Amino acid sequence: MKKLLLIYTLLIGSFMLYVYNVHFKETPPNPWETGGLQGEITETYVMVTFQAGMDFWKNTLKGFEDAAQLLNVSIEYRGATQYDVNEQITVLEQVIAKNPAGIAITAINPTDLTDTINKAVDAGIPVVLFDAGAEGSKASALISTDNYKAGAKAAHKMAELLQEKGEVAVVTNPNQLNHQERTAGFIDTISTDYQSMKLVTVEDGMGDRLAAREATNVILNNHPELEGIFVTEANGGIGVGEALRLSQRIGDLKVISFDTDKGTLDMIEEGLIDATIAQGAWNMGYWSLNFLFHLQHDLTQQQVNDIPGIAPLPTFVDTGVTIVTKENVQYYYAH
Amino acid sequence: MKKLLLIYTLLIGSFMLYVYNVHFKETPPNPWETGGLQGEITETYVMVTFQAGMDFWKNTLKGFEDAAQLLNVSIEYRGATQYDVNEQITVLEQVIAKNPAGIAITAINPTDLTDTINKAVDAGIPVVLFDAGAEGSKASALISTDNYKAGAKAAHKMAELLQEKGEVAVVTNPNQLNHQERTAGFIDTISTDYQSMKLVTVEDGMGDRLAAREATNVILNNHPELEGIFVTEANGGIGVGEALRLSQRIGDLKVISFDTDKGTLDMIEEGLIDATIAQGAWNMGYWSLNFLFHLQHDLTQQQVNDIPGIAPLPTFVDTGVTIVTKENVQYYYAH
Repeated sequence: MKKLLLIYTLLIGSFMLYVYNVHFKETPPNPWETGGLQGEITETYVMVTFQAGMDFWKNTLKGFEDAAQLLNVSIEYRGATQYDVNEQITVLEQVIAKNPAGIAITAINPTDLTDTINKAVDAGIPVVLFDAGAEGSKASALISTDNYKAGAKAAHKMAELLQEKGEVAVVTNPNQLNHQERTAGFIDTISTDYQSMKLVTVEDGMGDRLAAREATNVILNNHPELEGIFVTEANGGIGVGEALRLSQRIGDLKVISFDTDKGTLDMIEEGLIDATIAQGAWNMGYWSLNFLFHLQHDLTQQQVNDIPGIAPLPTFVDTGVTIVTKENVQYYYAH
Repeated sequence: MKKLLLIYTLLIGSFMLYVYNVHFKETPPNPWETGGLQGEITETYVMVTFQAGMDFWKNTLKGFEDAAQLLNVSIEYRGATQYDVNEQITVLEQVIAKNPAGIAITAINPTDLTDTINKAVDAGIPVVLFDAGAEGSKASALISTDNYKAGAKAAHKMAELLQEKGEVAVVTNPNQLNHQERTAGFIDTISTDYQSMKLVTVEDGMGDRLAAREATNVILNNHPELEGIFVTEANGGIGVGEALRLSQRIGDLKVISFDTDKGTLDMIEEGLIDATIAQGAWNMGYWSLNFLFHLQHDLTQQQVNDIPGIAPLPTFVDTGVTIVTKENVQYYYAH
């Protein structure tokens, strides 16, 4: 009787161990068979930035985190603390050494990260780029703002603010691709769609508050009829606003800036800046993780169609922009 | 004793009923709490096309189906059988009347579907566009080829085939937006990047085999030095190939066509067409369903950030293109 009990206990024990193994220890189930997109909490995806403390990354990271929560995977945030190419390369190399489930990276400039990114891809690590691309890289996708379209949207808003007539100027960073594209989108749209508007000058604000303030003073002197300024980045926007305040021309000119830093939002409340272009930062982070998950789990066109050289994922995602004005500025302070 | 047994049975029965309800009958669990993207098989998403039997839609539908399988939801395929605006509007209205979980639609032209699409959005049905957009529509996203970039890629391939020198021509449909963009991308790239190449003419192939054949004969007569032709769609590509065969100039000129219809692939094997541009049709369908699922389940930027007017999803997705030549043509027959 005792022997029988022992046998039963062993049998039941083995069965429970079997059930435990099947349910909790096996490799993740094949989603093509079971349905449902869900990873393992041990899968770690890493977001890599530069100037890691910047406001803008907070929203991208929130999107990355939210996607991770939905897919039941883990994330880490790493970044160069400074605006320093070599520091970002070092950070990326450290991340690669840990062989993560995927890397979402924004490149400090279009050229210098490419080799290191390709090292990650060659090591079999899924990589996507967000916000700023790397020319010639093997990353599977770029998830970013279409800056040409964003500039065009700024032009339409400027036309609305000026009743489609008058002189306008641009303050930008002429050496950065993103800013060249924003400027081109603005200029092309003004010249194509608004016959009674005229672009009078494009000035270098150097991505700097003081430089942009100086540039604005020069523009105001040379073009007394000027009615609007489009600034392609946030520091310059603050500089333009300050120039208008100092020259006591608040509300006299229309200003459209870029991004939603607190300084910009404050100037919108104050009436120094009329509108700013908000990027889809949360979507950049969210879809970066979602895409990396698809690569890690082989849920891609490449896998399904089995064609050598075919793009596994969409190559470019435009996360779009929203126009922020006095009417909706309050919603952007919280983010 | 019997009474006690009855009570126990009732208690155990109620408990089991409770467990059953909790596990199997409740509304889908909130993925923000439970993790995992998984829908209900009763959720039905609909793909709506025109010329529903066209080869190209087979791959988009496969992507749509594959995404549905992964997310454990259901799909339907509906389309106008003909190239007929009113028929597509009627089909879309019938689909809206059934209040599906989401609609992915490709618009037969950029204007005539917009009102009906907006009717769907206003009725609370998630809508995304794929392949061809609808101007001014309230659809949340367009998932398509960036046709300008596709034209630029064709230009780089043409330059490679011609060792970056010689006269080239384009055969296109000048009245369709997609084709204007492909042409512009090709022309701009040739003139900017390849100084020793020259565009000599752009002709109307009318999306028709015979018309493109005629156009090619005219081009060949007028430009005896011509070395390459880019055709922006598949019927025209066949026409160009036929013109070269009839004029016995096979292999003499380089031809780049668009899409991967069987006729085009056959001409690549035969050497009449040197390359064709394959679109990411599977990705168009896959990400259409994935995006609709996110809208249906409120897993979007709009939901998370709670900002009025903010784009819930990325506004544009470029699914990218792949170049098909004799080297990889065999992989495209199966798809």
